[in-house]
Formats: sequence, C-alpha cells, structure tokens
Amino acid sequence: MKIPACFVLAPVVFTLAVAWVGGAKVIAQIAPIGSLSTLMPLPAKMVPQAGSLAITPAFRYALGVDPGSRLTQAAQRLMARMEQRTGVQLAREPLAGAAATLTFVVPAATALESVPQPNVDESYILDVDATHATLTAKTDIGALRGMETLLQLVCASGDGYAIPAVHIEDAPRFPWRGLMIDSGRHFMPVPVLLRTLDAMASVKLNVFHWHLSEDQGFRLESKVYPRLHEMGSNGQFYTQDQAREVVAYASARGIRVVPEFDVPGHTQSWLVGHPELGSALGPFVLDPEFGISDDALDPSREFTFEFLDSFFAEMAVLFPDPYLHTGGDESNGKQWRANPAIAAFMQQHGFKTTEELQTYFSQRVVAILAAHHKQMVGWDEILAPGLPAQAVIQNWHGIKFLLDAAQQGHMAILSQPFYLDHMRSAADMFLADPIPTDAGLTAEQQKLILGGEACMWAEHVNAATIDSRIWPRAAVVAERLWSPAEDRNVDDMYRRLSVETLRLEYEGLMHLSGPVRIERLLTGSADIHPLEVFISTLQPVDFGVRSHQQRANTLTVFDRLVDAARPDPPLRHQMPLLVDAALAGDPAARANLRTLFQSWQDAAPVLDKLEAGSPILHEAHTHIAAWPKLAAMGLQALQVLDTKTPPPADWLDAQKAVLHDAVAPQELVDFVVLAPLQKLAEAAASVK
Amino acid sequence: MKIPACFVLAPVVFTLAVAWVGGAKVIAQIAPIGSLSTLMPLPAKMVPQAGSLAITPAFRYALGVDPGSRLTQAAQRLMARMEQRTGVQLAREPLAGAAATLTFVVPAATALESVPQPNVDESYILDVDATHATLTAKTDIGALRGMETLLQLVCASGDGYAIPAVHIEDAPRFPWRGLMIDSGRHFMPVPVLLRTLDAMASVKLNVFHWHLSEDQGFRLESKVYPRLHEMGSNGQFYTQDQAREVVAYASARGIRVVPEFDVPGHTQSWLVGHPELGSALGPFVLDPEFGISDDALDPSREFTFEFLDSFFAEMAVLFPDPYLHTGGDESNGKQWRANPAIAAFMQQHGFKTTEELQTYFSQRVVAILAAHHKQMVGWDEILAPGLPAQAVIQNWHGIKFLLDAAQQGHMAILSQPFYLDHMRSAADMFLADPIPTDAGLTAEQQKLILGGEACMWAEHVNAATIDSRIWPRAAVVAERLWSPAEDRNVDDMYRRLSVETLRLEYEGLMHLSGPVRIERLLTGSADIHPLEVFISTLQPVDFGVRSHQQRANTLTVFDRLVDAARPDPPLRHQMPLLVDAALAGDPAARANLRTLFQSWQDAAPVLDKLEAGSPILHEAHTHIAAWPKLAAMGLQALQVLDTKTPPPADWLDAQKAVLHDAVAPQELVDFVVLAPLQKLAEAAASVK
Repeated sequence: MKIPACFVLAPVVFTLAVAWVGGAKVIAQIAPIGSLSTLMPLPAKMVPQAGSLAITPAFRYALGVDPGSRLTQAAQRLMARMEQRTGVQLAREPLAGAAATLTFVVPAATALESVPQPNVDESYILDVDATHATLTAKTDIGALRGMETLLQLVCASGDGYAIPAVHIEDAPRFPWRGLMIDSGRHFMPVPVLLRTLDAMASVKLNVFHWHLSEDQGFRLESKVYPRLHEMGSNGQFYTQDQAREVVAYASARGIRVVPEFDVPGHTQSWLVGHPELGSALGPFVLDPEFGISDDALDPSREFTFEFLDSFFAEMAVLFPDPYLHTGGDESNGKQWRANPAIAAFMQQHGFKTTEELQTYFSQRVVAILAAHHKQMVGWDEILAPGLPAQAVIQNWHGIKFLLDAAQQGHMAILSQPFYLDHMRSAADMFLADPIPTDAGLTAEQQKLILGGEACMWAEHVNAATIDSRIWPRAAVVAERLWSPAEDRNVDDMYRRLSVETLRLEYEGLMHLSGPVRIERLLTGSADIHPLEVFISTLQPVDFGVRSHQQRANTLTVFDRLVDAARPDPPLRHQMPLLVDAALAGDPAARANLRTLFQSWQDAAPVLDKLEAGSPILHEAHTHIAAWPKLAAMGLQALQVLDTKTPPPADWLDAQKAVLHDAVAPQELVDFVVLAPLQKLAEAAASVK
Repeated sequence: MKIPACFVLAPVVFTLAVAWVGGAKVIAQIAPIGSLSTLMPLPAKMVPQAGSLAITPAFRYALGVDPGSRLTQAAQRLMARMEQRTGVQLAREPLAGAAATLTFVVPAATALESVPQPNVDESYILDVDATHATLTAKTDIGALRGMETLLQLVCASGDGYAIPAVHIEDAPRFPWRGLMIDSGRHFMPVPVLLRTLDAMASVKLNVFHWHLSEDQGFRLESKVYPRLHEMGSNGQFYTQDQAREVVAYASARGIRVVPEFDVPGHTQSWLVGHPELGSALGPFVLDPEFGISDDALDPSREFTFEFLDSFFAEMAVLFPDPYLHTGGDESNGKQWRANPAIAAFMQQHGFKTTEELQTYFSQRVVAILAAHHKQMVGWDEILAPGLPAQAVIQNWHGIKFLLDAAQQGHMAILSQPFYLDHMRSAADMFLADPIPTDAGLTAEQQKLILGGEACMWAEHVNAATIDSRIWPRAAVVAERLWSPAEDRNVDDMYRRLSVETLRLEYEGLMHLSGPVRIERLLTGSADIHPLEVFISTLQPVDFGVRSHQQRANTLTVFDRLVDAARPDPPLRHQMPLLVDAALAGDPAARANLRTLFQSWQDAAPVLDKLEAGSPILHEAHTHIAAWPKLAAMGLQALQVLDTKTPPPADWLDAQKAVLHDAVAPQELVDFVVLAPLQKLAEAAASVK
C-alpha cells in the first residue's frame, strides 16, 4: 500500500456532507490527521518545500542548554502525542548533540514556575526538510506554539507517517486570545478545565478567563472569608490547591489564567454568607434560577471596600496573572435606589444615576487592585466617564462599545460575536474581526484592541455537555485572533475545521462522544444511527429562545435532544453549496444530494420505531414527522431537475406548507436545511 | 402513540446481533431503559403485579424520621437520575406526610459519616402498585440497594414513563462483592474512580478494593513517610484529601473501600525513597516495565516492621474499613536467598524455605494490623501453615486455593475467574460460582466464602480505556455474587446485559464512547461506521498473549485497534445461536445472518479505503484482508443451504484455508466469529 506523501484534501466539500451523516453506502471521506493544508490556525507565512521527514522510532529531539521545565515537559508530551497519532514508539527523553531529528533552538528558557506574561513573544520559525526539523523561538512559549504546528503537520505517508518539508514563520496577530468558562452557574470539575486547557493550547489560545463567582455559586475556596464558598456554593467549589493546579497546568501550556469575581452585581452567592455586604436586607439564599438579580454589594459603606481589599489581596497571590476581572455587568441599581442610606450617599457625592455610583465603585476597585499589582478587566457596563484609563474593557454588547473603549483610551477585548451560547455559526465567528476595516480607529487606538475571547456561559451546559458547545467553534475564534486579517476564506476554514474537530478529540475532548451518549439515552438503544442522521439536520436554538422556552435552572438535567444537537453542524454550511452546485448542473452534487436525502428517507422509519418506544424522544414528534417530508421534497425536486418534467401545479404550495410546519422550533432545536431545500424546491417548481 | 406498559423484551436475541453492528437497513431493536425483565442483578424473589405507577412531575417521595444524610442524598440523586432517564422534571426535596408517591420505610439511619460495615443488612422489600411505591429496608444501605432496583424498573409506558407494579423481596447471597482497580501500574485519576463507584452502586457491588502501591508507583500521599509518594510515583499519586473524598463518595453509595499496600514483593516504588527497607543493595529506580521484580522488603530487620507499623497506623486512620489488604503475591525470594544476613536470619529461625520466611512476615503484619484494629487480606501466596486464622485469602490461582483456604478455616474471596484482563466472556464469569456444587465444603466452611471480586489490573489499561475493560462484564460478576445460585441462564443474562450496558452509560461510564474515540483516531475520519462493523467481529487477545506480543510499559499509548476492541463483544455469544437456528431451518435466523454478512461485505471496501489512508490501521492488514472472505463464506454457505445446491468440491478446503489465515492473532485482536462460521461452512459442504 502506497499513498502519496501527506496528501492534501481537495477543497471540494461535497462528499464530506454525506460522510458526516454516516450514510452507509457512501465512500468515506478520509481526512488526514494533519498536513500543510490542515493547519488551524493558519500561520502568518508558510512556504512548502519538496519532500518530507519520516517519523520512525529513530525520531529523537534535542533541547538546548537549560531549556527550563516548561519546554522540557512540553517536548515529552509532544513525543507522547505523536506516538498516539502514529503508533510509532518514540523515546520521551531528549538526545544530546547533533544526531537529533528535531532540534529546538530556544534561548535559555524561563522556568515553569514563571507564568506566561501578557506580552511574551510567541513567534517561532519552523524548518523541516527530508532529514531534520528545526524549531526556533525567542521564548519557550513560542516553541510551544511551534510544537502545535509541527504536530498538526504529521500525516500519513506511504506505509508510515511523516512531516512535510516546509518553512514557516509565524506569530500571533493579537496577544490576548481567550476562552471564558462560567464555573458559577454550573460547576465544572477540574478535569473538564484541564482537557479544555489542552485543547486551547493545541489551537494556540493563550488566556483562560475563569468566571468563578455568580449568583448561583461562589466557586473558589477563600481562606480569608470561608463563608463565601462554604455557604455560597452548595459544596461545589474549587479548593485553592485545585486553583493552583489549574494555574500550573495552564502555565505549562503557555496559557495565562485570568480569574473573574463579578462585582457589584451577580453577587447573590456572596451575600448568603456575608449579608452585611448587601444593599438590601437579607437573609439571602442561593437561587437556582438564572437571570438578572437585584442583589448587589453596597458601595456606600467603607466596609465593602475593606472586605474587597482583603479578599483581592488573597486572590492576587493565588492568581499570579497581572490582570484580574471584576465583572461589573448587569447590576441594575434597583436595590441602590431603594436603600435610603445609599440614596443619601449618592446625593452627598453628587451622583445623579446609579451608573455614576457604579463608576465610583469601579474607581475604588481599580485602586484596590492596583495596590495588589493587578490591572482591572470588566464588562462593557463599566465603561463610563471617570473610569480610570488602565481598566480594560471586555466587550459583550455591540462592537460599538469596543470601539468606544479604544477611542476613549482603554485597552479592550472583543467577545460579543464569540458568545458560544448564541449558537452562531463558525463562519460568523470567523468573519467577526476585532478591528473591522471600517472601524475608524487610529493606529494607536488599534493597538489598544488586545484581541478577543470566546465565552461559554453556563446556564445551559454542564460538565457532560460543555465540550460540544465550545468545540470545535472556539478553534475558529483562535484562528481569527492568531492568523492574519486577510485569512477570510470560509470554505477553506470549514474544510480545515473538519480535520481539526478530530484532532481536538485526540486532546481528550468529549465534543464528539458526548452527544452520542445522549443519543443512546434518548433512544434507549445501542443502534443510534437513525437518530444521528436526524440530528445532523438540526442545531440548538440560541440562548434567548432556549431561555424563553425552557425554564432551566441549576438542577435541570441536560440530556435532551437539544443537548445532543451540535451548534453549526456541517450540513448547515455544506447543503447550500451542494444545492447551488446541483442547480448549476453539477451531476456529482446532484448525486450527493440524492444520497443525502435517501439516507434521511431510509432512516426515518427506523427513527419512528425508536420514537414509539421512547417518550423522551417523542417530545420532538413534530420535527421527526416533518423530516421524511423534507427528504421526499428533496428527492422529488432532484427528479424534476433531472428529467426536466414540471411538477404538478400545486406541488410548490404543498412544499411550502411542509417547510412552514418544519420551521417552528420545537424541543429547542431548529432544522438547518430548510433554506437550501426551499431554494431547490423553488428551482424545481420553475421548470417548465 | 401508545405502547404497551413496560413492554418486555422477547427472549429472542437474533435481531440484537444485527442492531449492534449497526447495519443501516435493519430495524432497530428497541431496548427499554428498564422493566421487570431487565433487572441486573436479578432479585432473590420477584412477583409481578398488574398495572404500573406513572412517573409524572407530581411524583414525590417521603423519607422517615431522621433518615440520615446517606439516605437523604441518595434519594435526591434518585430523583435526578429518574429525571435524566425520563425527561420528567422531578422535585429533589422530600415531601412530608402521606401524599408521597414513593415512601421509604427505614429505621432511623446511621449517619453518612459512618462507613458501611462488612456485615450490614442489605436486604429490602419493594412494593409497587398503580398509585404508590414503598421501599422497606432494615438499614439505609438496604434502601440504597432497593433504589437501584426501582430505577432499573423505570420503563416507557404509553406516552410517558412508569414503574411496573411488583412485589420484590431481595437480599444478597454474598456479603463481599468487589471490584479491584490497580492504580499502581497506571495511575487512575479520581474522576475515573468516582464514575466507577457510581456504576458499582448501580449493580449493587459493595467493595472497592484499591490497589495503591505497585513496583511502578506508590500512589498515595503518606505524611509519615513522604518519600514514599514523592520519590515513588513520578508525581502521580492521590493526596490524602483525595483518598478521603473517594472513601466518602463510596460510603455515600454504600460501598466499602479496602486499600491494598502490596508487601513484601511488588515494592520497587517503596525502595526508591527508602532503600533501607530493601533486601538488596540499592539504589532503586522506578522501572516502567511490568513483571515480577526480585525486589522485596527485608523481613530479617526489626526496622522493617517498625516502619510498617508506623505506616499502617497512618493508613488505618485514613481508611476506616476493618480490612486492609497487604498483597503478598509474587515475592520470588531471590533477594532473600542472596542476602547473607537474611540467610543467617532464616537459619537462626529454622526457616528452610523463603515461603516459611514469608509466613513469618505475614504473622508479623497480621499482628501489626491487629494492633491498629485491622484484619489482613492477602493473595493466595500467603496461605501456608502458620498463617494466623484471621487472615483472609483472596484467590487468584485455581479455585483449589479458595477451597483450601476455607477448609483451613480462613475466610476467602474468589477472584481467579473474574480477572478482567483475561478477556473471558461474561458467560464464563457468570457461571463461575464461588461455591461450586462439587466443592465439598461443609456448611460452616461455605460460610467462610465471603464472595468475590472482579480485578482490573492495569498493565494494559489507562484512564481512557479502563471503562470498556471493566464494563459491562463486572455487572455480571455483580449478579453472580448477589443473585441466587440457581440463576444460571446465560441467554437471559446476555439479553439483560444488552440493556444494562446502556444503563451503565447513564451513570457516566465511558465504556461505549471510549472505543469510538479510538476508532476516529485509527481512521482519521468522522465516518467510522465500517471500522465499527469490523471491530464488532473482534475481541482483544488475553493478558498473556498481549504481554508476550507487545512489550507495553507505563509510557505505552493505548490507542490501538486492540484498545478499541471490546472484550466479549455481543456477536461472540449471538453468532453461534444464529448459526444453530439457521441450520435448524429458521428463516428469520437465516435472514439475519445474511444481513449480517452483507453488512460486512458492504463495509469492507470502505474500510479498505480508510486503511489506505491510515498506516496505524494498516497494521491490522491481515485481519482486514481476511474479513470480506469471511463475509463471502457466510453468504455462500447460506446460499447453498437455501438452494440445497452443493458447493464445488474444493469449496470447503478453500474456506478452511481462509479460516486458518484468519485465526492467527494479529495486532493483538482475535476474530470471535470463526467457530460458528466454520460450523456453517461445514454444514453447507455436507449438502448433497
């Protein structure tokens, strides 16, 4: 058996659509585990060369003098990961001297104990020829980034595996490339965070923003104020040892950890054990229901700031990053207005609005943090006249807030288009640039845009479902923030993403296996194939719709159809392409579409039987019943187009009725195939 | 849509065989999530009644006075688990008074802090009618066992879910029903242990035997002798806080934790930090290679026993169970014989053999443990004249050792047939009785047989693969140890196991999803269907063959074909049944077999394409190439039988050559379908 060295996926995506839905009769699309054309994020500069470097048991690496423990450990992990992908047994220890296959050229590195700094040089140069690879970087962190590129290059070649010859010069576009996880609304056990950090590192994300307190839970042990976690977490909190473990694990992977303690709102959990901090009279209890609570810290009392000073002093030691996030969002001011003492305080200070009072609060917090050598990060709401210049704005409303912040001289981070629970497509996230071409920022202001963060709020996810909500879409955000602004080819991004999603699983993620577990639960059957085909046509409704339709709280079990459905399933992008090609007369596209619709039609009766035995699946009856009609519509339309025989006069109206029934969201999922189907049906109806 | 209340799976298993392999054209077998006929383990006495109790949001439970926190928490978990299976939102809190749907009748319970005792009464009585369920038990532990039965009864009924009316009186046959996990050879992170404990509780296993020290690693923090874990674990050890967490989690589920510290052999990891304990001169290093090391503690020096006394004193507090396992296996005596001081000690005490010296060692350890109120458990090797009567024998050689132990007055536990790495079938494990009918034990001696333990040694598993090695087979061991001796219907066991394996996934296990992750790695593709069909015909070779063919060590990556293959896959049991039925003329069996063989034939060319792109999969080329020939053999044989047209004269010889080539183990897997295929081929060849 010989296959071409590191063969490259054709940019045509048509067969993928069918392979994804698992139609048994379809020739599988073979996605190589890596190659030059599968890198994600794309490097800044890449020049392919002839030949490739074979991976054999003789593949050894050499570190420079005094490499430091971060680089040493990362190189050992690289060998283990390469062995996992190739089956080739690789020595874990470095080789001294020139005989090594892979040479690291890195100045004597900072020790592992030194956490990555915000402006560390992450650039690297990778050179691979037929006999040798050299990874050159100015810091160990840069070398780590280059290792991820190297690993993504590993591909099947002949009877074995190889790294294609290449010259890569790479560096990130933005220094702040983050992922936020909300451990407050649903507690996420440490292993979830660790596998997330592995996945982040693999796509060169470098900031883990850890949302640690929320109305529903105060999730970190405080030794100074133990009532915070003891009374505010239902027993679900991280010990300080665990926090240190997370910080160390992240640091070893070149990832900063920015903790968030959200104040003055979203503090119900603080007030359970410390009602004296509240703006209203207690007692306070942990409310499992999500939403915007009126509870807020009292900014009129010095006690509040003394408390925060002691608390942040403790946290400043635990979290070594120079930034500390203090939230500031969704504090509605109701309790401040209702409390006579606070009202008096406002009058005394001449604050006309609670927004002005919150700015006062922000000023105090900025000063407290500064005394502990921390710089404040906060959400859009803190941006107001009087906010100290060093406060960093994290943008979650319209991008106007981001640009305003930069224009007012604040450093800023984009998150609004990267909210993972909004269920936007990977394409939307990919195209959302932190510095839009029409932003109108000066060069100086542009430098204030530090980057962005994908945000995983946890109203609707738990430890078992979070992976498929974050991944693979966060990899696309990672590319947006790392790669050049000119990288905007959506089709190519999706082609690479179809490989990246598999590589992410090798890192230990459960984004592919988690939904399958739910599918077995929904069917009560080991044979989930028909449900898989059905789900490939669906995606979850967005946060707003779900919040409205399902009154989820912290106790809700997330093992329903919506939790098995994947955001932005491959069909959503691929089906319009298939339909356009089919309408342009491409016979392969027509054949693929026919196979696709036939796979729905074949699976539908089996799904009906599964539904008949599973009331929990029966909840999605309307969609299940509509599905074979969609399949029939597609097959009939193709028949019309192929034979050029017009359909009956009332055919299109009947199809529109089917589409109308199918469009209503039910059981919290939406079909992703309706628009291209409608286009196909209308084209068929226009055949004369 | 109406389906009969809690409909019962037909005892016919034929369609299951096909559903398991995922043939797209086959009507799926719907396995109910529960019902009277799916209980595992089987209860001692069950009398079905008419009707069923609906599960609606009004389903509430009532606890008695002072239920204790173990029962209180278990009842809350029961509601969450029932909500997971049914989608019906259920209140977590108990209801006071008579309005409850489910009433617990349990005497004021022991507090959660009191760990389960070895002879706790685990019996319960469960009564369900159309309006109410009552769970009566003498202890909270008994109530926990009954809750698992109740949950297994939940089944689809009409448009919703229900519990069938029934009267169950249940109690275990043996008090010691264990699972051992070897955290020594491969460290198993705490979450692996916690989900294992959840699964154990769900099938009423009640002893977690935790093998904590091994040549390859000393896995528990010792504050008295910190060099043990600091120098003997490569940093992979459990903190004492984590050990307490595991004990508490187990206790909350009615599971005892028996720790094992293996002495005097298998102690290489002890000697790295404490060479002064060794029988040979150090220095000692952690050897990643598995096997029987010559290293052993020095039994001739009082220092050794003083050390063990201090160490076991610390462990006796950390682990509250009255039993403590001290191993004693595979100490080969070589270093004892070679050490002049030990030889002199032996002569001085009149010990002629190193076995006698080990018995002296055991006597000392028994006495040390007794002083700390612990009773010793050890492996077969410690059974010798002079061993104190209170030592408990865990049997891992032939069952003769078990019977010898009982006849010599020792309590004893059966493990030999329950070694999970031996890859025996669930049927073999199910039929292995701790008290064989021909055992020749007196009634008094029979009482000494406490039960048994499934053992998961960790040479060939890691945290990602361990679940599919333990489960679902350990559920069958659980049934053997809980249910009456007369429960020996293998076909019925497999029918129930096909449901239980799904229920185990609901508990959080990864035995189904883990192998799929490896399948995606092996193919580099999201479309693993052809590989799944292929793997359904394979099982891993046993421990001995794998040890011989693969020199695995602690660094080996376990992401190969053998690691994706499941021990005792359903086809192994089902295919002989299908062939026998087909040969008896059953047309349904012939149709099912034809579908099965056709699914292989359809998948084979796609698998070939996957293999061509994946060198790591290509390693199994011989088996992959043989597979379509097996499919053709089956289809041709069925054709002969159906048409009664004799095959060509040389056909059978050609088939035997195919079978001969297929039987050679390669890439550490064996076909499980060869014997029934041969039977089918021979029957076809005999058609005249």
